[in-house]
Amino acid sequence: MQGTMRAMAKMSPSPGAELIEVPIPRPGKGEVLIKVRATAICGTDVHIYEWDKWAQDRIRTPRIFGHEFCGDVVEVGPGVERIKPGQFVSIETHTACGHCFFCQTGEAHICADAKIVGVDIDGCFAEYVVMPEFNCWIWDIDIPDEIAAIQDPLGNAVHTAFATSLSAKTVLITGMGPIGLCAIKVAKAAGATAVFVTDVSDYRLDLARKLGADLAINPKVEDPVAAVRAATDGLGADVLLEMAGNPAAITQGLRSLRKAGFASLLGIPSAPMEIDLAKDVIFRSLTLQGINGRRMFDTWYKSRALLKAGLDVSPVITHKFSLWEGFHKGMELMMAGKCGKVILIP
Amino acid sequence: MQGTMRAMAKMSPSPGAELIEVPIPRPGKGEVLIKVRATAICGTDVHIYEWDKWAQDRIRTPRIFGHEFCGDVVEVGPGVERIKPGQFVSIETHTACGHCFFCQTGEAHICADAKIVGVDIDGCFAEYVVMPEFNCWIWDIDIPDEIAAIQDPLGNAVHTAFATSLSAKTVLITGMGPIGLCAIKVAKAAGATAVFVTDVSDYRLDLARKLGADLAINPKVEDPVAAVRAATDGLGADVLLEMAGNPAAITQGLRSLRKAGFASLLGIPSAPMEIDLAKDVIFRSLTLQGINGRRMFDTWYKSRALLKAGLDVSPVITHKFSLWEGFHKGMELMMAGKCGKVILIP
Amino acid sequence: MQGTMRAMAKMSPSPGAELIEVPIPRPGKGEVLIKVRATAICGTDVHIYEWDKWAQDRIRTPRIFGHEFCGDVVEVGPGVERIKPGQFVSIETHTACGHCFFCQTGEAHICADAKIVGVDIDGCFAEYVVMPEFNCWIWDIDIPDEIAAIQDPLGNAVHTAFATSLSAKTVLITGMGPIGLCAIKVAKAAGATAVFVTDVSDYRLDLARKLGADLAINPKVEDPVAAVRAATDGLGADVLLEMAGNPAAITQGLRSLRKAGFASLLGIPSAPMEIDLAKDVIFRSLTLQGINGRRMFDTWYKSRALLKAGLDVSPVITHKFSLWEGFHKGMELMMAGKCGKVILIP
Amino acid sequence: MQGTMRAMAKMSPSPGAELIEVPIPRPGKGEVLIKVRATAICGTDVHIYEWDKWAQDRIRTPRIFGHEFCGDVVEVGPGVERIKPGQFVSIETHTACGHCFFCQTGEAHICADAKIVGVDIDGCFAEYVVMPEFNCWIWDIDIPDEIAAIQDPLGNAVHTAFATSLSAKTVLITGMGPIGLCAIKVAKAAGATAVFVTDVSDYRLDLARKLGADLAINPKVEDPVAAVRAATDGLGADVLLEMAGNPAAITQGLRSLRKAGFASLLGIPSAPMEIDLAKDVIFRSLTLQGINGRRMFDTWYKSRALLKAGLDVSPVITHKFSLWEGFHKGMELMMAGKCGKVILIP
Repeated sequence: MQGTMRAMAKMSPSPGAELIEVPIPRPGKGEVLIKVRATAICGTDVHIYEWDKWAQDRIRTPRIFGHEFCGDVVEVGPGVERIKPGQFVSIETHTACGHCFFCQTGEAHICADAKIVGVDIDGCFAEYVVMPEFNCWIWDIDIPDEIAAIQDPLGNAVHTAFATSLSAKTVLITGMGPIGLCAIKVAKAAGATAVFVTDVSDYRLDLARKLGADLAINPKVEDPVAAVRAATDGLGADVLLEMAGNPAAITQGLRSLRKAGFASLLGIPSAPMEIDLAKDVIFRSLTLQGINGRRMFDTWYKSRALLKAGLDVSPVITHKFSLWEGFHKGMELMMAGKCGKVILIP
Repeated sequence: MQGTMRAMAKMSPSPGAELIEVPIPRPGKGEVLIKVRATAICGTDVHIYEWDKWAQDRIRTPRIFGHEFCGDVVEVGPGVERIKPGQFVSIETHTACGHCFFCQTGEAHICADAKIVGVDIDGCFAEYVVMPEFNCWIWDIDIPDEIAAIQDPLGNAVHTAFATSLSAKTVLITGMGPIGLCAIKVAKAAGATAVFVTDVSDYRLDLARKLGADLAINPKVEDPVAAVRAATDGLGADVLLEMAGNPAAITQGLRSLRKAGFASLLGIPSAPMEIDLAKDVIFRSLTLQGINGRRMFDTWYKSRALLKAGLDVSPVITHKFSLWEGFHKGMELMMAGKCGKVILIP
Repeated sequence: MQGTMRAMAKMSPSPGAELIEVPIPRPGKGEVLIKVRATAICGTDVHIYEWDKWAQDRIRTPRIFGHEFCGDVVEVGPGVERIKPGQFVSIETHTACGHCFFCQTGEAHICADAKIVGVDIDGCFAEYVVMPEFNCWIWDIDIPDEIAAIQDPLGNAVHTAFATSLSAKTVLITGMGPIGLCAIKVAKAAGATAVFVTDVSDYRLDLARKLGADLAINPKVEDPVAAVRAATDGLGADVLLEMAGNPAAITQGLRSLRKAGFASLLGIPSAPMEIDLAKDVIFRSLTLQGINGRRMFDTWYKSRALLKAGLDVSPVITHKFSLWEGFHKGMELMMAGKCGKVILIP
Repeated sequence: MQGTMRAMAKMSPSPGAELIEVPIPRPGKGEVLIKVRATAICGTDVHIYEWDKWAQDRIRTPRIFGHEFCGDVVEVGPGVERIKPGQFVSIETHTACGHCFFCQTGEAHICADAKIVGVDIDGCFAEYVVMPEFNCWIWDIDIPDEIAAIQDPLGNAVHTAFATSLSAKTVLITGMGPIGLCAIKVAKAAGATAVFVTDVSDYRLDLARKLGADLAINPKVEDPVAAVRAATDGLGADVLLEMAGNPAAITQGLRSLRKAGFASLLGIPSAPMEIDLAKDVIFRSLTLQGINGRRMFDTWYKSRALLKAGLDVSPVITHKFSLWEGFHKGMELMMAGKCGKVILIP
């Protein structure tokens, strides 16, 4: 496709982002060109926008960022066989090499040589984006654009929740960012009998209640370990879905589990932290599992199954702006924590 | 406790049952005496009542039969430590030896030397019954007598449904007897995204719809394999819960599964049957698992968790009679298949 | 590569095979050309040679058959990136579509649209063969040509054996064809504490003893169920690896299992068979799993790990001929059952 | 049984132990009296002997300590049904309440109200000891007294090793105390293709080599992470069995694992430690499982199966003394780390 397009990009190694006009990219071998319908802001995008230490180390400018989106395939490159122009797709944001040990044993999501859309290659804060055919998920059920745009965080929630069986289990979710909020609905759909949540923001606890949390605990106000025990006949929760990445939340989460409980760890602590392995993990026979990304494409099939059966995570979406006019406002809301998921429309 | 009690018993090796008056039994070492609050008729009881070949081979008369019930502990024998008079209990109907390989490795429900209440030892169609302390499940949540009386079939449903994860899965249940009906609610609570059911009785299919079946198929009217495929994008169901024990239902059930699907087999075919292992099982990579009884007491904890969270199987109960006046009428309804679960109150 | 090559092919719909001279095939997009080092005869090849009913229904002539082999990559087609000329490879014999539900969820070995080398596309009884890049397994450890040629049956054995944990388990293998023979060594390497085998051929039972079977039972001479029970303190075997595909062997195998035992079913019965589901499966809480092919490429990594650690299945190979002079003799040995694995060198 | 017996006991809250003469204890309800054949010193006994902080908090004097032993049943108390005088038994050292959630769901080894022999009740450094019938493991295979005496540490090794499948896996064991040494043999028997070990004592690394370690690494001399990667084609080990309880060993162990590797944590760090959860656990998709005790009695059946199949852990036993003359010498060897397992014969 000829012509130029608008995009929001990090043009220099400093905070912020610029609206640029660049040629529409061309799909190479095995790639497709997608016209973006809707995109969403992820915490990772905020790190890039703020230009924190991680971003400084990882991002090479110029870079169009953004990785949560959906759109319409408008052109396919040579060798593309499965995807056709006109299809409506969401995107798996981790690319995989296809032939390492992990890719060859059904674990492409932890590919030894993975790249991330919007971080290592140009992303979706743009009118058009080029993606590998492999990363396209074709929608064959009706789904709103806004929901199709947030399959990445929803997939995180699904992958984290499905790390162990939640059927007839009590579940504690620590951290009520958009993934944690999605996880409330996912855990219930997966069969959890009760979902308890923690967050230090009352705004987010209110959102959590809207999404169906049975107990929304603010650790600044009450002891979450005691609250969870009180709600579980003194036993503790069966499963922890850790999505805060905060040392206090992680420690409280582990201590809220019953003996032989299971912890899915998705939240990323920003530094090493102290853990009382003996008392909090070993003597209590806990299992801890580190979670990355989403399974390609097992997690996607699960998300599709849940959505087809009526899973409604729309309350997670709290704001919707123009990608061009609302970008900086969306970033500000994210930095202030006064939002769920922010959708941007190009 | 002194005195006599009424009971319904098989007094001679022939069809039917008699109302008898016998001394109240005394709890021996490790046993408790229970005053029956409510009892229910199981298909096994109908076999005994009808005096079919299985019953003729297995039952020694005189025998008070019946095994689904709940009641109040009124007296405890020597050595009983956990159970106290006044507790409200339901009963696990398989006794276990406690020291065989299975009992010692968490599989007491398939004890090499199991006995069945109401079959090998006197049962619950009576005012009082003596049970091993081990078999008593103490209720610590509020639960109606009628629901407490049917923990045996509910437990079958739970054990069958939890043989594999049902989260985000499509489930076919073949056979809409009381266990199959309970399984609809259990499968949904466990996270199934859709539950399809089959039965040749329209009466039972109506009950199934009341309990939430997404698709109720009468194989006399339409092809269940085609119907399930149509409802699953052509793939087939993820999981089969087989509760009919009928060769046609079993074959249809297996053929309705997707490749690599899972079949929990609870229904008992009355004779060997022909199976196309190559086409229906091996080439399709199916897993089949034979199911017995209920896990002691893992299944009970799961049932409790589901009930506590609001599982409502009350529509399974369609009739309620006096144990003394309604017994034969209940048996007739069961033989005619014109009922769900029949409750009898002593 | 220019020129012609020799091959053994089914040229007309009738028994036998012919030595033909045809142009060396050219690798298409995503394909590689392999010079065959060693090939082996599979039971499937015998069906094609004999031209039985299955072959008549499935094979379109002319067809070069054969699918067990190893060789050297001599040329790569357009778009091939991973494989380089000069690499020594074995071949996964099932091709996969890459984008069905199964391919996208780590189960490409049961691809909804799989094709089989030497059955649906030309095979390896030839000097050269063209294969999809995806199907090539590159050897990075030292391995004899003959062993590299039988990775298909070894992979079957590994996939069947790894369907459940064999660590500290007793294992019965029914059927001592080459896969069953390989499975003896694989089961022991996987941690089985004892391996019992059955076959009606004393020749094959002798081979089984050479490969380390702890008990080699001829069901024509002694009751295998009684023999297995006697060897397991009366309990029965923990696991059955069924590789005979014979109704008697299957029934004996299931009856030799302990309660809650596990059966991996690989052998293919030629017709529907009668199974006493109630007594032999359900009341005994067995799990039966149908097995197909080998996992791509999880099974291959497992085989490699076992071979690297010293797994020696060379006694399975009993004969080695020229592909051109020894082909018919090899087929005759296979039909007579007087061999283990027959290797053919082009 | 009348009379007195000798025992080694902690008589006052201070270091050391005294030889005392006390009445032979009498088995109460559900208990048996055992004449000790052989006993062994555990690290826990050293803590009690040294009277460290843990011992000061936990032990009430007077207390006969010791918990690893075997012996002959000489008398049974009222209500004992399974155990008979004359039987040769080893002892599970954790007592279980029998009716908590864990005991009722097959996890009695993490009973909410467990007691430990030789810690909370009198132990086996004596001529006679009284034990609950439930805790007796009756030997029905031939086994040397010394091996029967160390079923507690062997069972720890088995339980830790069987937390995940080791078949065709590479395994790193950190910490070559007696449990770690046993684990080398157990891991190999369970199907590990290679076993790497670490310890800072060359004496213990020599023992490890004797027991079959493929690679024995002293972290004071070489980098264990680099050594394990070099031995695993750069990938890292599949499984870690952590038995050192030392922060450096735990960190090195986690870093030696491949992505999606599994860590069984048995060693007990004496204090909270710093863990880089993001880099070492979450981004690498590790699973960590805390391990306690041994499963009652699943682990015991596994140990028995391995021993029956020839598992030989006798090189773990390096010293054998009289319980009366050699006690203090044994303790000194333990404190110096100049021994494997020390056997004491009363």
